[in-house]
Amino acid sequence: MVGLPARGKTYIAQRVCRYLNWLGIFTKVFNVGNYRRKNAGAEQPHDFFDPDNPQGAIARQAAAVEALVDMIRWFRNDNGVVGIYDATNSNKERRALIMEHCSRENVHVLFIESICDDEDLILSNITQVKLKSPDYAHADPENAVADFKARISHYQKAYETITEPSLTFIKLINVGSQVIINKIQGYLQSRVVYFLMNLHIQPRSIFFSRHGESMFNVQGKIGGDSELSPRGLQYRSALPGLIDNHLGDEKITVWTSTLRRTISTAELLPYPKLQWKALDELDAGVCDGMTYEEIEEEFPEDFANRDEDKFNYRYRGGESYRDVVHRLEPVIMELERQHNILIVGHQAILRCIYAYFLNHSHAELPYIQIPLHTVFKLTPRAYGCDIEKYKLDIEAVDTYRPKPKSIKHSTNSSAKPSAMSEISK
Amino acid sequence: MVGLPARGKTYIAQRVCRYLNWLGIFTKVFNVGNYRRKNAGAEQPHDFFDPDNPQGAIARQAAAVEALVDMIRWFRNDNGVVGIYDATNSNKERRALIMEHCSRENVHVLFIESICDDEDLILSNITQVKLKSPDYAHADPENAVADFKARISHYQKAYETITEPSLTFIKLINVGSQVIINKIQGYLQSRVVYFLMNLHIQPRSIFFSRHGESMFNVQGKIGGDSELSPRGLQYRSALPGLIDNHLGDEKITVWTSTLRRTISTAELLPYPKLQWKALDELDAGVCDGMTYEEIEEEFPEDFANRDEDKFNYRYRGGESYRDVVHRLEPVIMELERQHNILIVGHQAILRCIYAYFLNHSHAELPYIQIPLHTVFKLTPRAYGCDIEKYKLDIEAVDTYRPKPKSIKHSTNSSAKPSAMSEISK
Repeated sequence: MVGLPARGKTYIAQRVCRYLNWLGIFTKVFNVGNYRRKNAGAEQPHDFFDPDNPQGAIARQAAAVEALVDMIRWFRNDNGVVGIYDATNSNKERRALIMEHCSRENVHVLFIESICDDEDLILSNITQVKLKSPDYAHADPENAVADFKARISHYQKAYETITEPSLTFIKLINVGSQVIINKIQGYLQSRVVYFLMNLHIQPRSIFFSRHGESMFNVQGKIGGDSELSPRGLQYRSALPGLIDNHLGDEKITVWTSTLRRTISTAELLPYPKLQWKALDELDAGVCDGMTYEEIEEEFPEDFANRDEDKFNYRYRGGESYRDVVHRLEPVIMELERQHNILIVGHQAILRCIYAYFLNHSHAELPYIQIPLHTVFKLTPRAYGCDIEKYKLDIEAVDTYRPKPKSIKHSTNSSAKPSAMSEISK
Repeated sequence: MVGLPARGKTYIAQRVCRYLNWLGIFTKVFNVGNYRRKNAGAEQPHDFFDPDNPQGAIARQAAAVEALVDMIRWFRNDNGVVGIYDATNSNKERRALIMEHCSRENVHVLFIESICDDEDLILSNITQVKLKSPDYAHADPENAVADFKARISHYQKAYETITEPSLTFIKLINVGSQVIINKIQGYLQSRVVYFLMNLHIQPRSIFFSRHGESMFNVQGKIGGDSELSPRGLQYRSALPGLIDNHLGDEKITVWTSTLRRTISTAELLPYPKLQWKALDELDAGVCDGMTYEEIEEEFPEDFANRDEDKFNYRYRGGESYRDVVHRLEPVIMELERQHNILIVGHQAILRCIYAYFLNHSHAELPYIQIPLHTVFKLTPRAYGCDIEKYKLDIEAVDTYRPKPKSIKHSTNSSAKPSAMSEISK
């Protein structure tokens, strides 16, 4: 990361980290501020950050090097794939230091510079984010703002925007209203750039709900393309009022899958609608239309394997959760670009989307509880995401299958801890 | 498009046009040079392009306006979605004229500027492309190069790179080694930008082959996940020699689907391999594992509908060709980014990929002939794509089903001419 304080560097770093981990690319943020606070203590006054203050400069340099060395160690020993080095890195000398450490280890470097001259945006970042930092835990808010502005001006004295022609970089100017990219190469860099191009920071919410209870739900069968049950039809009738209550005057677009139960559930909603094939339920292959009991009886080995590593288990002729994450990637990208969206979807699909926004691991993902007849409202914030749940008082079967406590085939090589299976991709 | 002559504008325009049409977004290029040649005649000497030559300036302005008006008419009357206005548009005045015409019609404008100061690249563009233009049909090549360079220098006198801050633009500098984007908004603009970021012009070839004949092929069944037939195994043994013969010393990576018949066919190839779920065969849903005769008997209505509009027909619980095109989009993007690739794939999948490179319409796509036991080699060129086919002398069943001559249900609303069904997306 490159940029003055309060330019959203940490926000961008966290968003990229969450996106890549969700895709299965093992990513970690190394925040130099945390190292500096650990070593020199938090709540340093602004002149600690004055480049002419030798004591501060030494302490800050030490924190920068320590974080860098830790990151390199993580690449080498922990199979790290993308390390995000979150600091101002605001002059050529510091960037040359990074290049030196990284090229020695054959680590490719992509600089992400955030430039912002919109004073309102900077001030809102200071008040909403920086004042909640441990650096100002005991400060009066007004003094804290003045102190932080003084800190910024220290950095401004020595700030050099990236002009080094040999560096690979993306410059985001005023939250992406202009973007400059240089020497971007390879799959990972281009994915990250595309992701950054699509981020916006306008407030909005993402609503989602599973379809109303279906005939297959009632019969305990998975997959298929059945119609809604009588209780599912009740949910369909109640849904427009619920959404209207929580949406207010905002606009919204409804996304469904191409399967009957989601299209039917969304039918009475008075909003524009879009069907996505990519939102269709996880394909259970040869097990489509069977009950879990039938699967256990007919494919006992498969059934046990699925319990061991549910994220990676692929149904014969069907899909794994990992497959679904990949087919949902364009949906996530479009969600990033859109404003209010209501998704009427399926259990496995909504687990993947939920895991993206709430940063759940691949091991947790297949066990996230998304009950029927419940609307979720996600509101992305600067850090994290607010969740509200609205459960309608219309009964439905419980389709949740908890992770079994005892695992029968613990020697199976596909049963790895989640971080490992993410790396192995 | 914006840029001096011989900066690859027409190449970029054609590539974007092909990509968007393949995705089902109705796109057309309006080349001002063609209008100029039609009106003023081809083979004008370079001073026709001198901005100080009033006669030439008037003729060129007239061609520019005529093309622009035609494009606007196409938007209005023919449901055009993306018009590509291919001309130098190399000063602010001309760009203001475009903005004026387009904003009146509510057409959003994205300027794509190609900047190149690599003299070798410019010269190779002149000799490989411009000398084949009707403008130099009767010229001596050496004189033609000199004339074209003089033409460029006329444009250079009046050239203004885009600096207008209100315009939406992407600048591609030296074939994407640096890219600047400004005020990109919305799905279409961001897709085009991502596509342009991934284009390269290094020479390479894409090889592809269907899997060897499978047991299901022999039995006339579609879909499934069967093993290779004895003749399919022969093909697998012969494939490494064939690829080696036509690859020379180049490196290559093999992509397969996740189905047995492609993985097995690729097994003896001594190159790095990657399995793509997105390369799995078109999902025939409830018809998976049936013969065409069985489908016709069990689902006669569906079968007839499929023949009427094969591109849009979605098998119950399965996919349409249109669905497959969408799931292949990341594969195409990755193919654009890669060098030599060999795909061992499936009939429907390879039809979609072939249609992308050879610019076949959605109506033609499902009927492209991709026989078994044949390797295709596609070599993208500045304009178009060379094809070579190598048929191995190992017999296999013919899985091609031609488009039936008589159509039974011609009143079905899904049976539209191809351009229409592309628009309706």
